[in-house]
Amino acid sequence: MTFTAQLVNYVRDSRLADIPADVHHEAKRALVNIVGCALGGADHPAMDITIDALGPYAGPATSAVLGRRERFDPLLASLLNGISSHVHDYDDTMPRNYIHASSPVASALFAYASVNKVSGPDFLHAFILGFEIVARIGNATYPAHYDAGWHSTGSVGVFGAAAAVGRLLGLDAERMTYAIGLAATQAAGIREMFGSMGKSFHPGRSAQSGYMAALLAQKGFTTGRLPLEAPRGFAAVTAATYDLDKLVANLGQDFDLRVNTYKPFPCGIVIHPTIDACIQLHDRHGLVADQIEAVELRVAPLVKDLCDKKQITAGLEGKFSIYHAAAIGLGRGRGSLSEFTDAAVADPVLKRLRELTQAVGDGEVGEDNVVVSVRLKDGRTVGMKLEQSLGNLARPLSDAQLETKFRDQTTVVTPAQVDAAIAACWGVEELADVSTLIGHCVPAGQ
Amino acid sequence: MTFTAQLVNYVRDSRLADIPADVHHEAKRALVNIVGCALGGADHPAMDITIDALGPYAGPATSAVLGRRERFDPLLASLLNGISSHVHDYDDTMPRNYIHASSPVASALFAYASVNKVSGPDFLHAFILGFEIVARIGNATYPAHYDAGWHSTGSVGVFGAAAAVGRLLGLDAERMTYAIGLAATQAAGIREMFGSMGKSFHPGRSAQSGYMAALLAQKGFTTGRLPLEAPRGFAAVTAATYDLDKLVANLGQDFDLRVNTYKPFPCGIVIHPTIDACIQLHDRHGLVADQIEAVELRVAPLVKDLCDKKQITAGLEGKFSIYHAAAIGLGRGRGSLSEFTDAAVADPVLKRLRELTQAVGDGEVGEDNVVVSVRLKDGRTVGMKLEQSLGNLARPLSDAQLETKFRDQTTVVTPAQVDAAIAACWGVEELADVSTLIGHCVPAGQ
Repeated sequence: MTFTAQLVNYVRDSRLADIPADVHHEAKRALVNIVGCALGGADHPAMDITIDALGPYAGPATSAVLGRRERFDPLLASLLNGISSHVHDYDDTMPRNYIHASSPVASALFAYASVNKVSGPDFLHAFILGFEIVARIGNATYPAHYDAGWHSTGSVGVFGAAAAVGRLLGLDAERMTYAIGLAATQAAGIREMFGSMGKSFHPGRSAQSGYMAALLAQKGFTTGRLPLEAPRGFAAVTAATYDLDKLVANLGQDFDLRVNTYKPFPCGIVIHPTIDACIQLHDRHGLVADQIEAVELRVAPLVKDLCDKKQITAGLEGKFSIYHAAAIGLGRGRGSLSEFTDAAVADPVLKRLRELTQAVGDGEVGEDNVVVSVRLKDGRTVGMKLEQSLGNLARPLSDAQLETKFRDQTTVVTPAQVDAAIAACWGVEELADVSTLIGHCVPAGQ
Repeated sequence: MTFTAQLVNYVRDSRLADIPADVHHEAKRALVNIVGCALGGADHPAMDITIDALGPYAGPATSAVLGRRERFDPLLASLLNGISSHVHDYDDTMPRNYIHASSPVASALFAYASVNKVSGPDFLHAFILGFEIVARIGNATYPAHYDAGWHSTGSVGVFGAAAAVGRLLGLDAERMTYAIGLAATQAAGIREMFGSMGKSFHPGRSAQSGYMAALLAQKGFTTGRLPLEAPRGFAAVTAATYDLDKLVANLGQDFDLRVNTYKPFPCGIVIHPTIDACIQLHDRHGLVADQIEAVELRVAPLVKDLCDKKQITAGLEGKFSIYHAAAIGLGRGRGSLSEFTDAAVADPVLKRLRELTQAVGDGEVGEDNVVVSVRLKDGRTVGMKLEQSLGNLARPLSDAQLETKFRDQTTVVTPAQVDAAIAACWGVEELADVSTLIGHCVPAGQ
């Protein structure tokens, strides 16, 4: 049987009851995270621009968009869900291939479930399958695909959206093959977009293209039958080297949701250890900014190179400043979206802390570590060495921390809606209709 | 100035009056050809499937689709125009890079001009610019891009659609850069789709994605500023080797419309010489099928390998059968769409002619040549050697032959509409509003 056929049959024949309980739980953690990210990004300018540009061409307004009052057709809604949930670079990451898989998959599924009745178990199942398809195609083509310059969250994410929506549509094997084929032939997204809105466009467009692939396949739009493995298929065209066996090894037993990670802070991953350590020092010693006289950071040389920005004015710059990282951790004891706004960067308290911080590149310090030393005005010096950064596989965010992250970034719906949305994610398997969850994510007054 | 900036400035600043008259005429030839192809493919099953799948999600029905009664939003219309105009593999080809550039560019432009008033000169100008952008990006990345497995009609075509629509929208340099960026990050389409409907999806989706890129850019959706030439830009990501100088060499002076070609027959290019020669023999000797006792073809060995199919039942198979090529040329004196239907393949007259034909691979015969020998029942033998196949650069289709091709494939509108449409293409520079031309291409009774 071909590789494509094995994946197609798995997506078609999988039963939720056969997927281990820990994977169910990881999937719900991913949902809590991605819904929070979608709400957190829902009022980003990239969303307003997209709605302004494409809203006039949208179909019947049947689908909700997470975090927005407007309704659109579900294809445009899937694009918008993808942009919002990735635009703060705050969504999940698979350390094996650096793909943010939840955004393209969940973005399509929430749009689909907004216009079709989907039970909680079916939704959870489709999400797990879509995520796993992304993971496997990502693993099979990593690192050559990513190194070539593809932003695989887009170029691989599209397969997960197609498979997940295709599963809910009940596509037979032939049509699921076409859905995968139409995903393969829409696979796109290049890393030159990093640092622009174009990056968030990738999971959005892949959600929309994957959804569209499933719709076309359902009606019989034909494609080649070996879209992944043929000499002119996805792997060969987009990766100099690849390992197709990874597409199917232990299929149905290994699930990459188990090795998914969640960012605690909406910024470059390389400044996470500093924020993390500085928050710990803030909390442990009850620090207030006025007490602090000097800060020294010892970081990996790469981190110093990438994030050596002290004179900054834009929130976006703060996301890649090791000095701002120390300032928010020590001065505010937190690193949420509100610490990376233009206003936060202009905050004189944080500005003073940035200025009194020195950073030293040290070859003995790993990229996941930091050594922080803080000299206080009363003569004391406090400090610590961080060995593992919060959010990586060795120190995953707890369920409670994921909830806090959700709450911290959500302003577009009421606190009561936030509570209900979080509860609905954890209890998704009990939902008769996922529209209940979606309803909690739509601001009142539509 | 960067390569992208040079192209952006050219698209923004070009004046139609500065483009030589012969290029205007070649552009009109391309329009006659592509409109005919769109009408010829308008009732293909791929069109019905796409409308069935995506029509329910279409926006306000403001845009015509060439050759269809239904109206959709212009983004879906651009997808449909692209499918119809490429689905018979009958559109134009640039021999320098094998891209069928008119389909993605014109498909977006006709949708745009269906919902916005566009004068004939502005339409022609945008078409010339979009075509040239496709040609230059295609030339700069050929052959590595194509050899890697990209169907560059899709993956490069998207740039032309974005540039052409962006020109009509009057984008400034910054926003035109974003339009090119959003095209680059949607560039897609792999050759594994060849032989399926997926192939025609490519120019359609690239028309739609390019149109969408221009709309988003107009409203300020940002991208990287070096989408073509950056280390993680289009050229480096999708081509092992490339020559960026070809993007801008003699910009505004050289136009690849001058080296564009048009297929006389809707089938594999390698059986064109046989059809051509057999039609010539049919016409020259007044042949009728009953007279013919045996046929011998001497063809290039590659042609024999690719097209050695005598026992065929489907029209699609006829497109790659050297025997069917001889049969239609000698038996019918023509090779239009109606010679490649299932019915034509089942025609007992053509079946007998296929059976009495022998084909020999001959290393002395080039791929663009054929030697045909026909033995008649009266004892005579007639034959010829063809040196250049009709439709290549040495023997281009005449304007009159392009008109005949248009008429031969158009059944979805009336003969009076066909006459008016052809006249409007030749006279596009006199049109106050291109909707006049589009109106001639929409069947009555909508």
